[in-house]
Amino acid sequence: MALVVQKYGGTSLANANKIHAVAERIARAVGSGDRVVAVVSAMGSTTDDLIALAKRVNDRPSPRELDLLLSTGELVSSTLLAMALGSIGVKAVSLSGAQAGIRTNASHGQAKIADVEPHRICYELDRGRTVVVAGFQGITDEMDVTTLGRGASDTTAVAVAAGLQAQRCEVYTDVDGIYTADPRLVPDARKLDEISFEEMLEMASYGAKMAPRSIELGMVYGIPIVVASSFVEAPGTLIHSGACMNTNVTEMRNRVSGIATDVDVAKITVLGVMDRPGVSAALFEPLAAADVSVDVIVQNAGEGGATDLTFTVKKSDLSKALDVVNKTSKQIGNRGVVSDDNLAKISIVGTGMREGSGYASRMFRALADRGINIEMITTSEIRITCIVHRARVAEAAQALHASFELEKPGG
Amino acid sequence: MALVVQKYGGTSLANANKIHAVAERIARAVGSGDRVVAVVSAMGSTTDDLIALAKRVNDRPSPRELDLLLSTGELVSSTLLAMALGSIGVKAVSLSGAQAGIRTNASHGQAKIADVEPHRICYELDRGRTVVVAGFQGITDEMDVTTLGRGASDTTAVAVAAGLQAQRCEVYTDVDGIYTADPRLVPDARKLDEISFEEMLEMASYGAKMAPRSIELGMVYGIPIVVASSFVEAPGTLIHSGACMNTNVTEMRNRVSGIATDVDVAKITVLGVMDRPGVSAALFEPLAAADVSVDVIVQNAGEGGATDLTFTVKKSDLSKALDVVNKTSKQIGNRGVVSDDNLAKISIVGTGMREGSGYASRMFRALADRGINIEMITTSEIRITCIVHRARVAEAAQALHASFELEKPGG
Repeated sequence: MALVVQKYGGTSLANANKIHAVAERIARAVGSGDRVVAVVSAMGSTTDDLIALAKRVNDRPSPRELDLLLSTGELVSSTLLAMALGSIGVKAVSLSGAQAGIRTNASHGQAKIADVEPHRICYELDRGRTVVVAGFQGITDEMDVTTLGRGASDTTAVAVAAGLQAQRCEVYTDVDGIYTADPRLVPDARKLDEISFEEMLEMASYGAKMAPRSIELGMVYGIPIVVASSFVEAPGTLIHSGACMNTNVTEMRNRVSGIATDVDVAKITVLGVMDRPGVSAALFEPLAAADVSVDVIVQNAGEGGATDLTFTVKKSDLSKALDVVNKTSKQIGNRGVVSDDNLAKISIVGTGMREGSGYASRMFRALADRGINIEMITTSEIRITCIVHRARVAEAAQALHASFELEKPGG
Repeated sequence: MALVVQKYGGTSLANANKIHAVAERIARAVGSGDRVVAVVSAMGSTTDDLIALAKRVNDRPSPRELDLLLSTGELVSSTLLAMALGSIGVKAVSLSGAQAGIRTNASHGQAKIADVEPHRICYELDRGRTVVVAGFQGITDEMDVTTLGRGASDTTAVAVAAGLQAQRCEVYTDVDGIYTADPRLVPDARKLDEISFEEMLEMASYGAKMAPRSIELGMVYGIPIVVASSFVEAPGTLIHSGACMNTNVTEMRNRVSGIATDVDVAKITVLGVMDRPGVSAALFEPLAAADVSVDVIVQNAGEGGATDLTFTVKKSDLSKALDVVNKTSKQIGNRGVVSDDNLAKISIVGTGMREGSGYASRMFRALADRGINIEMITTSEIRITCIVHRARVAEAAQALHASFELEKPGG
């Protein structure tokens, strides 16, 4: 009798019929003897609809008020799922983030979980009830409702699993697992049976559909995560700590696991920046203050005390970022600011890269053979990322997929 | 600098424009130096929409889940109003029922307020903020969300006013005050400048648009209530304790204040019930258990140990009530059950009736002169109610309005 946390996303709960389908799936798990805690996102486009409603009364709504408003989306889906479970004879109770003991700091809109106090969840489980927790939300010490940021119901689910020391966290979504590459770009992309936390963290950060924070939590607290489809019955992909569960460790670690792509990329280059201490801080602090998330940063060492500084942001943040940079760039002395909003990120990810060599050169060769120009390069221990033109990203993904033979299981 | 609680209903908050209009009204009160706590209902038809959504997943949703679901309606309107206030420079904060300290018992769907713990409201007021409280909801000792029943945002408002010892509670709605009769039935009905709690309690219970519980609370805690339109600037009607505020007490107490009508009435008569102890309990306990609210009860003393027992229920509850009565009436022995769902209640209300006489005969005479048949009669100290056919209710109201000269101010 396992204790399992299941997470269901908004598309899986978009209407009454889909909510019933989710209830049936939970009922099967309960019927097989598992104790289940379900964590839910808001139905369909609810969150976007509520944001639009807020903007109609105030262009810049108070983050505190916006959080309390947005939290209603998950209250609606969680109560409806509990009712749907009741209608098929599964005793169930819904809990708000506050009731479920999701304590956070007070950073409205992007709060961080400080602690999970699962007394109430445990009490309800002990009474034989299935618990439905409203994801995405928590509560501060002052009893103010917070939200954890976009996609953060995944994070709620893994945090609850950690708090309960659950056997695993199952994330049900509209894809049936983690693929070697985006199947829309690479037709022969292959579903992975398993992937390590570290690899998934890189994949998630670089385009795959999982909140990186949730992967990080799973890694820290050792909670295996299964990503699977909420619409079909299929095994999905197991994300785990690697060593103890993988039957062919050596082979796994010896290769690239997958290709992550992200087409929401723009870059800004500040030309001829004075090469002196404090320049980067002067540039990036105002961006952080304006809530622009900067991703890849590359500084090209120049000559004569001046350098070019290039960084990427989300395409949707470009105009806001340019406003900030144009203001601050005057203070740091430069020869102009240029930008490009037609870019994409493509990354190869694999723990094997930590010990092997030749991955970078093989990647650059594969792209060069197709005549794909590399704008920027950045690497981590288990990832190599290139910025390319958006129009070439599918071709680039296919080239890398073939070059690293990802279509072959266990390759 | 008065501390004022203002309550806004769902029609006053039905869309972004109306929410802005409410914000402007609050801003004027704040600008004039008042400290304001606003209590809000859900926007427009939100509550009905949520109930319909619940029914789509479960015919008989758990009351506990339904309460948590319905509570989101007021969270949405309260956060939006706080945002709208912010957009015009009024510092504001919204509070859920739980945050506002509305403690209730655990009777989901019709919870009673046990206490108001206004620490958080006071804290926010002390910081110079206008507070917007989600009406209609509260929280149990077990931190479960409850709702207080239909129309109960009025009750929240008066309870908060009592908890804060506010100077008054202003209820803004789609009518501009309390009338001597329903203006749709009686064209020359007159808006009352003031009315006593006791009279208003009878008016509210017998058809006027106020939750009787809110009037009762105002009466017990001595909170003057002003009912006024949220759409136009006009004085409205003051509901108060009478004695100390009324300039022409004698005259007031010497007459009928208003006519209450209610067209949602059906009656059930159980014929030839055995006249022995326990019969009434045997009949009405199962009705209470089935959540049927019984209103007027009349028992006609019969001969030979049998009696006819007639009572009224809401028209919408008739079929449910008949199901219950048909089952239980066999146990209590009777000669059949008959019903009529084409009835209305009409009442004359006035504290003056307590001391005067001749009101009942004058009422019956006015109805008789129009040939309007009286089906049932029931009285309280300050009210006389007749059940008549629904088709005749407008005519009855006009006849009584004329007979008691209610068109004349201070008459």
